[in-house]
Amino acid sequence: MTAISYELLHKEKNTNARAGILHTPHGSFETPIFMPVGTKATVKGVSPEELKDLGANIVLANTYHLFLRPGADLVKEAGGLHKFMHWDGGILTDSGGFQVFSLGELRKITEEGVTFRSHIDGSKQFLSPEVSMETQMKLGADIVMAFDECIPYPADYEYAKTSTARTSRWAHRSKDAMTSENQGLFGIVQGGMYEDLRKTSAKELVEMDFPGYAVGGLSVGEPKELMYEMLEVSTSELPENKARYLMGVGTPDHFIESVMRGIDMFDCVFPTRVARNGMAMTRTERIVIKNAQYTHDHNVLEENCDCYACKNGYTRAYIRHLFRADEMFGLRLLTLHNLRFLQRFMKELREAIFADKLLEFRKEYYDNLN
Amino acid sequence: MTAISYELLHKEKNTNARAGILHTPHGSFETPIFMPVGTKATVKGVSPEELKDLGANIVLANTYHLFLRPGADLVKEAGGLHKFMHWDGGILTDSGGFQVFSLGELRKITEEGVTFRSHIDGSKQFLSPEVSMETQMKLGADIVMAFDECIPYPADYEYAKTSTARTSRWAHRSKDAMTSENQGLFGIVQGGMYEDLRKTSAKELVEMDFPGYAVGGLSVGEPKELMYEMLEVSTSELPENKARYLMGVGTPDHFIESVMRGIDMFDCVFPTRVARNGMAMTRTERIVIKNAQYTHDHNVLEENCDCYACKNGYTRAYIRHLFRADEMFGLRLLTLHNLRFLQRFMKELREAIFADKLLEFRKEYYDNLN
Repeated sequence: MTAISYELLHKEKNTNARAGILHTPHGSFETPIFMPVGTKATVKGVSPEELKDLGANIVLANTYHLFLRPGADLVKEAGGLHKFMHWDGGILTDSGGFQVFSLGELRKITEEGVTFRSHIDGSKQFLSPEVSMETQMKLGADIVMAFDECIPYPADYEYAKTSTARTSRWAHRSKDAMTSENQGLFGIVQGGMYEDLRKTSAKELVEMDFPGYAVGGLSVGEPKELMYEMLEVSTSELPENKARYLMGVGTPDHFIESVMRGIDMFDCVFPTRVARNGMAMTRTERIVIKNAQYTHDHNVLEENCDCYACKNGYTRAYIRHLFRADEMFGLRLLTLHNLRFLQRFMKELREAIFADKLLEFRKEYYDNLN
Repeated sequence: MTAISYELLHKEKNTNARAGILHTPHGSFETPIFMPVGTKATVKGVSPEELKDLGANIVLANTYHLFLRPGADLVKEAGGLHKFMHWDGGILTDSGGFQVFSLGELRKITEEGVTFRSHIDGSKQFLSPEVSMETQMKLGADIVMAFDECIPYPADYEYAKTSTARTSRWAHRSKDAMTSENQGLFGIVQGGMYEDLRKTSAKELVEMDFPGYAVGGLSVGEPKELMYEMLEVSTSELPENKARYLMGVGTPDHFIESVMRGIDMFDCVFPTRVARNGMAMTRTERIVIKNAQYTHDHNVLEENCDCYACKNGYTRAYIRHLFRADEMFGLRLLTLHNLRFLQRFMKELREAIFADKLLEFRKEYYDNLN
């Protein structure tokens, strides 16, 4: 019996897209699914009740940030992440690897793990598969991730090969160290932008038999075509009866293209981050709310949108005013809008899969863009 | 028929406190009442639904801020403040006078009005009784305030006398200029810290027969005893059948002492401003949430509190984490707590008035303070 399982419900006829259910200790969730990011144990500006209302069932929290502050021991003492942040839905924690490797000069990789300096106070820190698993067990998320290296782009073949082999060894160590029965550990396919390394990585992970697999190291600066090619190679090696999670991707076009290539799960800071910068996502355009053109625009962000902001009649002119006046309620309104927009988009995507009409859905999506 | 009226329900036996109902075009509200401040057409970080849930029925917005940005014309075009900010409860706007006079060197007073420089862009602006009324009519609040001068403390007798006389002339002009039938105009008693000037001011305003009266120019740096003395003098001249509003006051001790002297309405940025600075108000203490002592404190802010934060089990340790991590959800939780704390406090104060036990309530309040 594993904490996490994937139930395949329908395979779309014309693509590799699939619809299913992700079963977790904190609920069963329809896939494809988008997980809002709650980096530091809170989705910025949004309450758990608002997340539920807009249709989010599972959120991602970052091990790196929580490891540094407030520390995993404190979260454990509080009763785990769910209790700490008052969230009874699903939680996924990443391994901390991605953030650590993003530190660049501030970290040093050995076979044992990674030594790095905290971005908060410069203190020396260490993460390894074992430390990451221990931390993630204390945090207590439903889905936890193996400790991996996210290979930068571009990277030469030798570097990518060495790194990918180490990620496989680290996946082994992660699996050995993850002893909690209430958490499901996902392996992460790496391999840089090299087809053979992607295949090798996927195969080695599949042999270890994880309850789910992530595809990492994509959307890191490479051309879209290359990303989709590598995604296709990666998912082609993954078993049909396990969930597949593309890390760090969160725009409608990426959703469509990735779902077509067999992806079930997504997370990204994009919708929440751009909201705080004053951008609203819609099916036809991206609204930069501070622009003068919205000064007298007494329409809602998107017609027929059922998000909190739109259904209650908050206008572009009002939200623009809030942003110009540095009022945080503006950030909240745009964040709620963008998150609801993506949840609704995902629901429509799922319906297109069940109807075997994903290609039509895709065409319509691109046709509607201004 | 006037837009605003006050219904006296009960006079407390041992003090000058009273309980009543304030009738407005957007609802009838129990008094004594505290009005949260939504300076720029939003109570910082709080949604209208949350305000309703925590028991707030009427909010204050600032004419000065809205006059400068987004401008009263835009708000009128949007359908008025209620529609603009999605709030169907009561709204009170101040006259802009207080903010303008706070600009110090940046403004110049004449009989006609006040010339000043915008704090936003330095542009030259002008406010007078007529401009303030025109602006407040465009904003469309239920209760609007006469244009007055808030006399600084300390001020010599001659200055206070000259200013108070002008405030009375401005009150006349304000009344003449306020032609909207859906809005109720309150006069503002001034007079500095001089008993005879306070009495004169109150009498002159009462002669003009406003539907309500504010007491202004208190809590501006003077000793508490002096404030209460001036308050008593001011209210002693006001008619029993009109609402009395003490401007800019928002702490429990001030509520008790002012209600005892016949005040019905309050507003203050205090609860929301200190919340954003990390302070939670309780009956026994003020919690500075960032303090190290709360690191492992897995209790709610205040036992038995029915605010959103406390009733949902958000702990001091979690809120401390949010503040240390600069997460805006922390500000929201403390803001909701403080606002609910004051609403509940006001409800209990009202019950004590009906029970003729205000002095016992007062003693208990001070005894409970740590």
